Amino acid sequence: MNTITITEIRENGCRFPRPSEKNTLVKNTVKDILRTVRQEGREAVISFSRRFDMNEREYLRVSDEEFREAEKEISLELKNAIQQAYTNILTYHNRQKPESYTVETMPGVMCQRIFRPLDSVGLYIPGGTAVLPSTVLMLGVPAQIAGCRRIVLCTPAAKNVNPAVLYAASVCGIKEVYTVGGAQAVGMLAYGVEGIPSVEKIFGPGNQFVTEAKIQVSSDPDGCAIDMPAGPSEVMIIADESARANYIAADFLAQLEHGFDSQAILITDSSRIYKEVQIEIERQLQFLPRAEYVRGSLQHSYLVKVDSLNEAVEIANDYAAEHLIIQTTKPEELLDKIYNAGSVFLGDYTPESAGDYASGTNHSLPTSGYAKAFSGVTVEAFGKFMSVQQITREGLSNLEPVISALADAENLFAHKNAVLIRLEGK
Amino acid sequence: MNTITITEIRENGCRFPRPSEKNTLVKNTVKDILRTVRQEGREAVISFSRRFDMNEREYLRVSDEEFREAEKEISLELKNAIQQAYTNILTYHNRQKPESYTVETMPGVMCQRIFRPLDSVGLYIPGGTAVLPSTVLMLGVPAQIAGCRRIVLCTPAAKNVNPAVLYAASVCGIKEVYTVGGAQAVGMLAYGVEGIPSVEKIFGPGNQFVTEAKIQVSSDPDGCAIDMPAGPSEVMIIADESARANYIAADFLAQLEHGFDSQAILITDSSRIYKEVQIEIERQLQFLPRAEYVRGSLQHSYLVKVDSLNEAVEIANDYAAEHLIIQTTKPEELLDKIYNAGSVFLGDYTPESAGDYASGTNHSLPTSGYAKAFSGVTVEAFGKFMSVQQITREGLSNLEPVISALADAENLFAHKNAVLIRLEGK
Repeated sequence: MNTITITEIRENGCRFPRPSEKNTLVKNTVKDILRTVRQEGREAVISFSRRFDMNEREYLRVSDEEFREAEKEISLELKNAIQQAYTNILTYHNRQKPESYTVETMPGVMCQRIFRPLDSVGLYIPGGTAVLPSTVLMLGVPAQIAGCRRIVLCTPAAKNVNPAVLYAASVCGIKEVYTVGGAQAVGMLAYGVEGIPSVEKIFGPGNQFVTEAKIQVSSDPDGCAIDMPAGPSEVMIIADESARANYIAADFLAQLEHGFDSQAILITDSSRIYKEVQIEIERQLQFLPRAEYVRGSLQHSYLVKVDSLNEAVEIANDYAAEHLIIQTTKPEELLDKIYNAGSVFLGDYTPESAGDYASGTNHSLPTSGYAKAFSGVTVEAFGKFMSVQQITREGLSNLEPVISALADAENLFAHKNAVLIRLEGK
Repeated sequence: MNTITITEIRENGCRFPRPSEKNTLVKNTVKDILRTVRQEGREAVISFSRRFDMNEREYLRVSDEEFREAEKEISLELKNAIQQAYTNILTYHNRQKPESYTVETMPGVMCQRIFRPLDSVGLYIPGGTAVLPSTVLMLGVPAQIAGCRRIVLCTPAAKNVNPAVLYAASVCGIKEVYTVGGAQAVGMLAYGVEGIPSVEKIFGPGNQFVTEAKIQVSSDPDGCAIDMPAGPSEVMIIADESARANYIAADFLAQLEHGFDSQAILITDSSRIYKEVQIEIERQLQFLPRAEYVRGSLQHSYLVKVDSLNEAVEIANDYAAEHLIIQTTKPEELLDKIYNAGSVFLGDYTPESAGDYASGTNHSLPTSGYAKAFSGVTVEAFGKFMSVQQITREGLSNLEPVISALADAENLFAHKNAVLIRLEGK
């Protein structure tokens, strides 16, 4: 773990370098995989799955029978947890469904904005050692609320999909699931293969191959849209004297558990907290099952001592954390000054894991500073807005002087003529 | 102009190939320009501007004096037109400002969603022979409504910026304007130079260098976000027997006036309209100032005869036009079946130019089929959503079984511990 003072930050412009690697080998490998999938279709997808995922299944698609089996395999406790998380996420996201509106901008000029869900969407859920029923919910719920006609889920598997993942999918009403992963899954979703039509947009986290594939298909006009490139997970914690060092340490370690490239940063104006958190992290590490794994991430994590909470806020807005935890006396007051963060957690009893699983907010959030310009996954991300206008003859007559003057200024004669021809004569 | 029957479409899968060119020279040139701007800053921007735009100005920034001069130079008629267009666009877009909301997903679990405007945005307005005060309004109004702290406008100029462009900027409250264009403007906005801080997102149309530069900076984690890549403008017109051939021809030509790579497509179930529109287009072309320019675009435009309006709708949804005009007996009834279009124009008195300038809707729209997954420019595009949660001890106690079961299923022990440590003891 690294400790820094605010003076050092000001002098060196430390930006808490986020661990990242640009890898040309990955780029070229993905390019090849995508091209092969486009050219050879289903055969290529099957072949890559056998090779990269040891997929020994007869069929790519998960059957109804497998869904039924999955439901039997998981405990009642887990089923209830998935149901409750689903309910909370639904409650939170239901407020996001955009309403269409109509407005008369001038007499006779009626304008509307209509929300249309994307026709087909693809949800990518990592497999292998990762078990992510929570991510299924985080992507499946807003897709359902938006009203997408077709929701496809891809997740790699050698034999069976994790039953919790399948159960979470069924709770979201998702029936079209394929045991395909990696760049080949992204290619299959973006371009379609025999019997599996393409989708308009792909959502979901993944390893560097998946992420690179998403970037490549989104830059291809024949590809499809994506939610956003996902980077390593991160948390920033702002704490004052009122905070609890053991809570902060627990939040630090929960974040670092996400992966060796995760990042956690504490910003505090309290010398006591600054010291005690370091001690607590070491103490709690002893009890963690994957301690050495987590220690790796500590190497690019930071503790920062500032002189005031205003400085902490300034750093937070500059870093634009995926998760921002505020454990101060009056966290709501700081909230008004926070402009850049994916998801904010206020107070002592609001650990990041609550948002990861069950509070209702979405855990698919912008990383790597993207929170300065991007939102996490929302219902709106699963649709698009169409504008509409309907003008009466009177309305067009009202608009004519405006259109004519602007068309003249812009040297677009035919634009003006399209109006005048309608107003001449009858 | 090309004429096609629906049979040919079904047999050949004609997708109305949109005119486009992938140009490696452009890609590499832009790469160089962006790198040079990053490394050499302001000097590079000035140097490129002198070279590419013949910029002979002493200062890049437009002065208050220039704004005042511009207002004197334009006619009262044009000033009124810009003011009225601004008002209509404001009226339409004001309905889009997202409201924050709060919801208690479980007792003691309060969640919010807050809209935060982007801090700084860059608006790119083409210059040279293009005169686009309308585009200034289309980008400036939603930026204003969203509440962006800093709105920067870039437009290339040899000496003076077109006065209508400056006046439109002032109407939107935009004061920071630079006479910089091309890839160097995009680089300056994305990376910042001495005295001109970078922005979070760049909006606006441009030539292939600008478009390629936007794509490159948006793929660079050190760059910035962009609205979307802009392609050539396009219109699709659905017409039945009730339509007026001369109106349709006028709309065709207004679209093609946008540029030699524009595209216009008519889909009609009426043999009479199918024949008469061809005649009308030829007739009206004689009166157009830039007829030979427009003739070029006719080469990749299409007339299609279908058997029913349902077929027309199917084609429209597949093509996903930037602009879709519906001139049929009951256009509102067809609207319900339209899923993919940027902006829709209903009825005989709703020419595309009304939307381009003054109805109030935005004219910055998805081209090249992107309307299947993207919206035109909206107020939402100038901001991002931040989620917030604040949980009481009771609330966390309610959530604990859900979090624990899911954390166990996902093998994330520290995630569970971050909750349990808060619930043990006091």
